[in-house]
Amino acid sequence: MRQAGSATLVFENRPYVLSAASVAGKAEAQGPYGRVFDEIIEDDRLGEKTFEQGERKMLLKALHRAVDRAGLPMAEAGCLLAGDLLNQIITASYAARELDLPYLGLYGACSTMTESLLLGSVLVDGGYRSRALCAACSHFSTAERQYRFPLEMGTTAPPHSQRTVTGAGAVLLGDAPLPHRGFRHVRLEAATLGRVRDLGITDANNMGAAMAPAAFDTIGRHLEDRGMNETDFDWIVTGDLGDFGSRMLRELSEEGQIDLEDRHMDCGSMIFRPEQGYHSGGSGCGCSAVILAGHVLPALERGAVKRVLFLSTGALMSPLSACQVESIPGIAHAISLVFEE
Amino acid sequence: MRQAGSATLVFENRPYVLSAASVAGKAEAQGPYGRVFDEIIEDDRLGEKTFEQGERKMLLKALHRAVDRAGLPMAEAGCLLAGDLLNQIITASYAARELDLPYLGLYGACSTMTESLLLGSVLVDGGYRSRALCAACSHFSTAERQYRFPLEMGTTAPPHSQRTVTGAGAVLLGDAPLPHRGFRHVRLEAATLGRVRDLGITDANNMGAAMAPAAFDTIGRHLEDRGMNETDFDWIVTGDLGDFGSRMLRELSEEGQIDLEDRHMDCGSMIFRPEQGYHSGGSGCGCSAVILAGHVLPALERGAVKRVLFLSTGALMSPLSACQVESIPGIAHAISLVFEE
Repeated sequence: MRQAGSATLVFENRPYVLSAASVAGKAEAQGPYGRVFDEIIEDDRLGEKTFEQGERKMLLKALHRAVDRAGLPMAEAGCLLAGDLLNQIITASYAARELDLPYLGLYGACSTMTESLLLGSVLVDGGYRSRALCAACSHFSTAERQYRFPLEMGTTAPPHSQRTVTGAGAVLLGDAPLPHRGFRHVRLEAATLGRVRDLGITDANNMGAAMAPAAFDTIGRHLEDRGMNETDFDWIVTGDLGDFGSRMLRELSEEGQIDLEDRHMDCGSMIFRPEQGYHSGGSGCGCSAVILAGHVLPALERGAVKRVLFLSTGALMSPLSACQVESIPGIAHAISLVFEE
Repeated sequence: MRQAGSATLVFENRPYVLSAASVAGKAEAQGPYGRVFDEIIEDDRLGEKTFEQGERKMLLKALHRAVDRAGLPMAEAGCLLAGDLLNQIITASYAARELDLPYLGLYGACSTMTESLLLGSVLVDGGYRSRALCAACSHFSTAERQYRFPLEMGTTAPPHSQRTVTGAGAVLLGDAPLPHRGFRHVRLEAATLGRVRDLGITDANNMGAAMAPAAFDTIGRHLEDRGMNETDFDWIVTGDLGDFGSRMLRELSEEGQIDLEDRHMDCGSMIFRPEQGYHSGGSGCGCSAVILAGHVLPALERGAVKRVLFLSTGALMSPLSACQVESIPGIAHAISLVFEE
């Protein structure tokens, strides 16, 4: 049975994670996970004329690194499933233009990394593609001017706000491990599709609070659909709830009698040091993408953890919907990753 | 084998189209296909305060109609795969908030209808979901002010330009026909993932020219991957190349020795009458969505045509990428639909 409960997909063939790569910015390099990223971007424009062209180059670097690391030519990566935060996801689409791979553009705000892994797993597990390249990307300077204010204004950030991570993560999936290179111990066993949750948060500077109910909903349904317990997972990792949203998720979980306390980690809270002064932490779809590629997948490959539930979390509003005084819908997709000898 | 050639997916279980619904605007109602749409929107705001809220209501109408027509409650629609043209696809995401279905947000510009059908077919064919609700939507008034000029300016449109269609189309897929209601003769047999093609068109008023090479590429690969001939299809339907882009596709096909002449139709060229004065025709992801739901699927259900290759076509640029003098990347995904007794 590949269908479990109301929203969970079971991957009977358990696709392999073949490789992963992460490229991150300078602020991210100064955070506690700085040394796990494969490449650090010193110049926010990466030598290009605009921040947007720089962001695209950063995503391409992550995609090429992931595929190179598996020892494959790009043409054998199967297909690309990717998205980003820019209007019309131009980072992913213009990157796809350079690669000549079949391409599916996704928009799940900061939930995109898990959305791409989920759909990539379906394509590989179902036998539709032998491999799939899954990626997500965000960039502080492009996001800030699109979503908030011109960078030149030097606006100060309110206390619950999070800083958009400059980072790109890419993960190559396949139906069999490669003979000589890449990961061989990380497999994808199941995923849960997120539903949109909206508790009426209207403060676009407090997206963690808007996303926490979605993360809670998806964690609960993943466990219920699979008849599992939170103790079956070593780590339950959320994307970018940040400090405030993480506290909210823990409170919801306590009420819902799910014991997250010692196994919950949030990429948004992990990526910067408090003394960097980025308030509630990191956000952006690059946030969970680089922590996944740089920290979570390598830990699984080493066998340091045996099973991880990974949930990128997205706030599905736009600057226009915020102006029209809409509340912020949240979503979280979950994917279950296992270590196998 | 579910994998054919470089980019084609074969649906061994051939999912069923269970129902379809279309909602369109007044200009579309005055076109040659006006009478096939299920509902016509007289008021561009649908009684809401803003055009964007009206667009969302239009999409919700199409989604509810498709599911009602199949005689199912919304909770049994499986999951929603949808997208639109607005920044951060707020139409689809805010509509998803109302439905409480598992939701995957997609961005393929005007290729979204085929992208959602393709991924919905994979989920159903692979046994991951019993049903999937696939949809796309666009709205003249929201797109015009986001992509071009304030409506109040009354800007005139250049000769190769196309008018964004106000329309929403929804298609419900399932792994078995329903006992009493809905379609029972239309099945999905294969799909081809599009690759990004870019021949260097920079004129955002000539998107048909930017998308024609992508449509040509995908048609050719679909035929090659499946070892088929264009004569195996009664219709080959493109999304919104418009008059100019369609001429370009026919020229490319002549050179490539694919005989499209008598079987090619383009939703963008079909949807308006020349005397309506919309230059090169219609565009927007609602364009192919309403022609698919209102005309193509019913023709298949009646057996008037036996096999159709349907390709929505997307131009993957943004207003920002246009300002940064980038050329326009095009993409087209294809899906093969068959009549079965």
